[in-house]
Amino acid sequence: MKAISSRDNPMVKRLHALANSARERRKLGETLLDGAHLLDAALQQQWPLKAIVVSDSGCAQLEIEDLLARCAHDIPRYQLPDALFAHISPVDSPSGVIAIIDLLPEPDPARLADSAALSAHSLVVLDGVQDPGNLGTILRTAAAAGVRDVLLTPGCSGAWSPRALRAGMGAHFGLRIHERVDAVDVLGAFRGAILATALGEGARSLYELELDAPVAWLFGAEGQGVSPALLACASQRVIIPMAGDVESLNVAAAVAVCLFEQARQRRRR
Amino acid sequence: MKAISSRDNPMVKRLHALANSARERRKLGETLLDGAHLLDAALQQQWPLKAIVVSDSGCAQLEIEDLLARCAHDIPRYQLPDALFAHISPVDSPSGVIAIIDLLPEPDPARLADSAALSAHSLVVLDGVQDPGNLGTILRTAAAAGVRDVLLTPGCSGAWSPRALRAGMGAHFGLRIHERVDAVDVLGAFRGAILATALGEGARSLYELELDAPVAWLFGAEGQGVSPALLACASQRVIIPMAGDVESLNVAAAVAVCLFEQARQRRRR
Repeated sequence: MKAISSRDNPMVKRLHALANSARERRKLGETLLDGAHLLDAALQQQWPLKAIVVSDSGCAQLEIEDLLARCAHDIPRYQLPDALFAHISPVDSPSGVIAIIDLLPEPDPARLADSAALSAHSLVVLDGVQDPGNLGTILRTAAAAGVRDVLLTPGCSGAWSPRALRAGMGAHFGLRIHERVDAVDVLGAFRGAILATALGEGARSLYELELDAPVAWLFGAEGQGVSPALLACASQRVIIPMAGDVESLNVAAAVAVCLFEQARQRRRR
Repeated sequence: MKAISSRDNPMVKRLHALANSARERRKLGETLLDGAHLLDAALQQQWPLKAIVVSDSGCAQLEIEDLLARCAHDIPRYQLPDALFAHISPVDSPSGVIAIIDLLPEPDPARLADSAALSAHSLVVLDGVQDPGNLGTILRTAAAAGVRDVLLTPGCSGAWSPRALRAGMGAHFGLRIHERVDAVDVLGAFRGAILATALGEGARSLYELELDAPVAWLFGAEGQGVSPALLACASQRVIIPMAGDVESLNVAAAVAVCLFEQARQRRRR
């Protein structure tokens, strides 16, 4: 364990940049896992860690000690005084442990263009979902509903930001997340139903639909909804019936209702 | 429209305090509605506004002009330069319009103790939900699912904070929100099923349950879950079946899945 005590240390500068700037994360090709829960989830999925950073008080926590024991021995480890750890922490209440991981390489275009592979399971397309908390919550919901592939259009928030990772609670490590995807192109290769949550002509209630077969679900940003180009790919518009004069759900709530209705129907088979 | 240009103006100090401090909101018995959407929702429900504050650039927006025309003429109106408006805005990207409203008086204990009235409809009890964004999202989901009463234990975040209001998207004005409630006491008067989302002995799948009759739903904070005292009130523990090794959903996602499963079953009747 290497002790660091200066803000001018290059590792401290790197951590601070990763915690605070999406641009720096892209430039360095790295991001931060913050907290014991995320680290535990990454270790369970044997996700490769590049470095581990612990605060003085984090070192004294049994949970963090256990995590460190589970990490490969050749991963560099750093220990920081609490004040310095707070400086590089992406959250207001520092957790005591952070890991650096590589951002994923771009998705494999061949895999996404392979119709049979793509159409074998349901997938989720998010269009312009900009709130990282919502985005992470949706990834968590998708993983819980058994979805494997999530596609994000260029207008979405970064899936691997510390805030989205935190909201995802480890779901990132069990999903295939494809960022900055040309979703119109990909959906051209999808053979199942393409369902967009949107009002409009021909829209049907979620509860009238047969959802047993794989579905490509399209969810848009709050306000704008699914973009017109993407909406044109949909084979069916879907509405979630609502009470009174409520117009819409939070996008993460809408995703939960749709994916778990599909999970319910598939379980029934 | 009264123009204000100084940070030392008492109205500016009051707005700044309301935007930034839960303690000040409680002390003054007031909160802020931020943005045209919330203001529109409040006006639709004829919610009483105490004052309206507009930024210079807000004044130039047609949407805000329309809102002002719909407000009662005797409501005091203030206009602030954009920089001063940003100073009192509860959000990073100032919306251009804010209203002051009264915080609600404490809930009517007589109504909550009236078994027949209480048991006539489903209700939602939130225990220790501390994230204001999650809380507001849950209120929005509850309203969309047709729930009328939402009870919050003392460990919950304030329902009327600017952040919870923003996430609620106007749902607050269509619900009866009871804060700082002794939920164990209230549930003693509830005659229907009391369902807690929790693992444990006797827990049943959400999809095995008959949810046609009114239900009291208990949802706990992430991590801790429903507190033991409240869990002891439950007539049934409920689990949402999940894929793979995912342990749990975000509490707002769990609420959406449960309440819309109930709405689906009731619609089917």
